[in-house]
Amino acid sequence: MTNRTIEVEPIAYVVGGRVEPTDDYWGGTRAIIRIDSNRFTSAATAGLEDFSHLEVIFHFHLTDKTDLNLGARRPRDNPDWPEVGIFGHRNMRRLNWLGVSRCRLLKVDGLDLHVEDLDAVDGSPILDIKPWFAEFGPRGDVYQARWTSEMLVDYFAPARDDTAAR
Amino acid sequence: MTNRTIEVEPIAYVVGGRVEPTDDYWGGTRAIIRIDSNRFTSAATAGLEDFSHLEVIFHFHLTDKTDLNLGARRPRDNPDWPEVGIFGHRNMRRLNWLGVSRCRLLKVDGLDLHVEDLDAVDGSPILDIKPWFAEFGPRGDVYQARWTSEMLVDYFAPARDDTAAR
Repeated sequence: MTNRTIEVEPIAYVVGGRVEPTDDYWGGTRAIIRIDSNRFTSAATAGLEDFSHLEVIFHFHLTDKTDLNLGARRPRDNPDWPEVGIFGHRNMRRLNWLGVSRCRLLKVDGLDLHVEDLDAVDGSPILDIKPWFAEFGPRGDVYQARWTSEMLVDYFAPARDDTAAR
Repeated sequence: MTNRTIEVEPIAYVVGGRVEPTDDYWGGTRAIIRIDSNRFTSAATAGLEDFSHLEVIFHFHLTDKTDLNLGARRPRDNPDWPEVGIFGHRNMRRLNWLGVSRCRLLKVDGLDLHVEDLDAVDGSPILDIKPWFAEFGPRGDVYQARWTSEMLVDYFAPARDDTAAR
């Protein structure tokens, strides 16, 4: 295996929304994805207004890079849930610190994309923005470990105020 | 904007499946995502067997990095479809050359993940592997530009043979 390093460069940043990367209550969170105006013109977002959702790749830039467990551990250290490996969960303590989220696109304003329910905090570097194509969702029967649905009950519950970190 | 570069390192590679990154007929394509055994043990995949699908971030490593249009263009140069910007499509000619795909997880064999319908070619560097959580799919009303559904009619149609590039 030849593990050459790959360099990526933020093309946008999250502006606004939540300040701390806490676990739950992302519902209704609004933010702007501000695309770098030094590198792009509004042509870069042409056509996006025809989509309800974006898929965003961002960098978990606030994560302590040493807080990493290559073995298996229980999600949120909950003794009721099974041990899962570093590729068995989606939390921010992961290799390469890449997040992938779907968010609602509220408005395209030139290089500012107004979004809702993006679970990336203010200042997060964005590495890619793609429109969501339903055809590229999971195909066929979909199932998942039970602990995930138990864990996510309040994930998109409404925030009790817009910027609170809980 | 402070565009510091971020370094990422492949944690796995695609083994098998399609050889050329052509547009359509990915249906039924099987491949292995082989996680780097120099860095990980089978603990890294613990718990994954409880999920039907993975979400994979990979690098479009075969793309000509100079074949990039920061303006707007018509998908597949089809005159019937509107011009879209570099963030208005999902094709491989994009900044940072990051792909995100969902694929079916057929079997977990230690550090080998056997998958179906992964639209990344043999040898693609994989930067992250996450289990698919339905709760993290798009929420609320979902719609998309009409050209996308017209374009994708044969995207997951069955390949006429396993490795053919069309």
